[in-house]
Amino acid sequence: MTQYKIPVIPGDGIGPEIIAEGCKVIDAAGEKFGFDVEWVEYPHGADHYLKTGELISEDTLAELNRNPVIYLGSIGDPRVAPGVLEKGILLAARFYFDEYVNLRPIKLLEGVWTPIKDKTPKDIDFVVVRENTEDFYIGIGGKAGRGTSKDLLEVSRNLYSAKFGLDIETDSEEIAYQIGMISKEGTQRVISYAFDLAEKRKKHVSSVDKANVLSDIYGFWRKEFEAIAAKHPGVTTDFNYVDAMTMWFVKNPEWFDVVVTPNMFGDIITDLGAMVQGGLGLAPGGNINPKGTSMFEPIHGSAPKYKGQNKVNPIATIWAGAMMMEQLGEKEAADTIVSAIETNILQAKVRTYDMGGSSTTSDVGDDIARIVQGK
Amino acid sequence: MTQYKIPVIPGDGIGPEIIAEGCKVIDAAGEKFGFDVEWVEYPHGADHYLKTGELISEDTLAELNRNPVIYLGSIGDPRVAPGVLEKGILLAARFYFDEYVNLRPIKLLEGVWTPIKDKTPKDIDFVVVRENTEDFYIGIGGKAGRGTSKDLLEVSRNLYSAKFGLDIETDSEEIAYQIGMISKEGTQRVISYAFDLAEKRKKHVSSVDKANVLSDIYGFWRKEFEAIAAKHPGVTTDFNYVDAMTMWFVKNPEWFDVVVTPNMFGDIITDLGAMVQGGLGLAPGGNINPKGTSMFEPIHGSAPKYKGQNKVNPIATIWAGAMMMEQLGEKEAADTIVSAIETNILQAKVRTYDMGGSSTTSDVGDDIARIVQGK
Ligand SMILES: CC(C)[C@H](C(=O)O)[C@@H](O)C(=O)O
Ligand SMILES: CC(C)[C@H](C(=O)O)[C@@H](O)C(=O)O
Repeated sequence: MTQYKIPVIPGDGIGPEIIAEGCKVIDAAGEKFGFDVEWVEYPHGADHYLKTGELISEDTLAELNRNPVIYLGSIGDPRVAPGVLEKGILLAARFYFDEYVNLRPIKLLEGVWTPIKDKTPKDIDFVVVRENTEDFYIGIGGKAGRGTSKDLLEVSRNLYSAKFGLDIETDSEEIAYQIGMISKEGTQRVISYAFDLAEKRKKHVSSVDKANVLSDIYGFWRKEFEAIAAKHPGVTTDFNYVDAMTMWFVKNPEWFDVVVTPNMFGDIITDLGAMVQGGLGLAPGGNINPKGTSMFEPIHGSAPKYKGQNKVNPIATIWAGAMMMEQLGEKEAADTIVSAIETNILQAKVRTYDMGGSSTTSDVGDDIARIVQGK
Repeated sequence: MTQYKIPVIPGDGIGPEIIAEGCKVIDAAGEKFGFDVEWVEYPHGADHYLKTGELISEDTLAELNRNPVIYLGSIGDPRVAPGVLEKGILLAARFYFDEYVNLRPIKLLEGVWTPIKDKTPKDIDFVVVRENTEDFYIGIGGKAGRGTSKDLLEVSRNLYSAKFGLDIETDSEEIAYQIGMISKEGTQRVISYAFDLAEKRKKHVSSVDKANVLSDIYGFWRKEFEAIAAKHPGVTTDFNYVDAMTMWFVKNPEWFDVVVTPNMFGDIITDLGAMVQGGLGLAPGGNINPKGTSMFEPIHGSAPKYKGQNKVNPIATIWAGAMMMEQLGEKEAADTIVSAIETNILQAKVRTYDMGGSSTTSDVGDDIARIVQGK
């Protein structure tokens, strides 16, 4: 019997309810495939923060960093200002563990309703590789104002003229700015990951950028993409401006195999992708460090208004759990969980409100666990 | 007979073909409503740039700036590196004329096919007010590398630690960065415009940001939004993270009345909005300076592969022309053009390939001009 010890951070809102179903299904798979999981729960989230003032300490991160995988519910609470928990816990973990790939499959399962017309499961089956540790997620920014001695005020004064060579100045009372940054190594490793993945799939990689406007940062991205593409002559490629990409996700999802994207654009297009594949209740993700600690979570947030109601769909979290078990090498268990999700959906009997049913969160977890065990 | 002099920049790719139809329809409306337009053509675009090396000069911008409106086709050409023409002509004009509102109606016309299930024209009828002169469109960025003396290298070194208080450093060989900036005045004026517009519509304004991650810049945006909302007690509001917004555009477009958004997010969500309303061939936009020069254009690009084929849909451009005439005070002519577009679509006889027809660009322009004149 293989033994695993897996840290779990249930988090905020509906996090605890959905993660309970994820653990339940993995435990059921363990009974069948001969492994046993010791779940080690961590209390981090809004309650812990409001009680202790601590988000997540470096000691805790270091301790978590000794595990190959972590299972995460969701982070975010209306009692805390926007960003405090998200940056202080979720993004802190992604950065600390250097989880440079955020892997988000966009796959319409058989029997799932999509809001997009005329598309079937064979049309919607691609993977987004979202860069996960750089770009506008680095959290550097600030404010400046008239009279401030900061250099940035000078930048802002000359801003309009800087690139256009035109004599237009701003002299604002107050400005707010934000800086994004991507590094050569950071860009190369995530794009290489995407190409390696495509080599095992349909051998096509689509890049997302906005090199025609944010030219400094995404011109660099594009250059690195081209260099890596040159090393994969068997893989075809295309370039997409992020604005156009939102159209293709809706109109032509069948064009895509592997989509690689800078962090912030990845955030935006994967929510759209989740909708295209049937809704956030069905969209899993993995924050991957191929040689370190990876963290698995649903794409959706903590949905505070549903907290404690045993109402929301646990499938995204259960699916993320399957990705986690695959990462640990339990491929058969992972495949069995995904196919149990598919069976549950096709049977169309036990489903939550978002899929037109009236079953509870735990009903769905029970049903999928039962199917996993072949009962 | 009222006389107008209107500068036209046909631009690149399909620009000249579609703008010709727009002018044709406006001329037809002029005959009916008693005005006459002198079209003054400007050659700016790829050909002019490749021939002369000039994008658009400050003298030309100053000359254009003496007109209340400008009619623009589209800018962008594969012979020129991404961004050169877009920034050097299109964005230069938006900035120079201080067109701080990019107004983009998202409206599904009767008889138009949308890729979204279960939505009818009454569900898809809102307006996006996109900030148009600040944010990540200011064009400030650059590169730094190990050994560079630039301050920004220091920033990059300490980037990960700066906000999370964690001891993680990067020491990359090369980084690329981009800076976005919004000013107090710039933010206030566009948000005020949105509220004033909502007062005349369904009295609801939705804000778009990503204050949970890009907190410096969009936390500021949110604060200014709240201050202006407080002055409009009769208008209801909501906040949306840009990632979630892409979902609601597809799932619940009926929630929206006026959507106000920072520049870059506005770029992204209005392409999605265009798709929701039936495709780029149907989506018009206006770059508005309420007290200066405004510039009207289709949302779509120059579609180089269709250039010279008389094939693409001119409706977005004709509709943008109607917005332009409304700006000039020709409300009746504008309404007549929009209703002629609706009639053309409902008759479903003369339509381009993207709407399932086989008519040419000029056939559609002729048909709409004919309907405008009541022939
Ligand atoms: C909660 C938020 C910080 C996060 C992000 O922006 O990455 C979320 O939207 C996601 O996509 O995982
Ligand atoms: C062509 C490009 C510079 C432009 C933009 O990014 O604003 C376009 O996408 C638009 O939306 O008008």
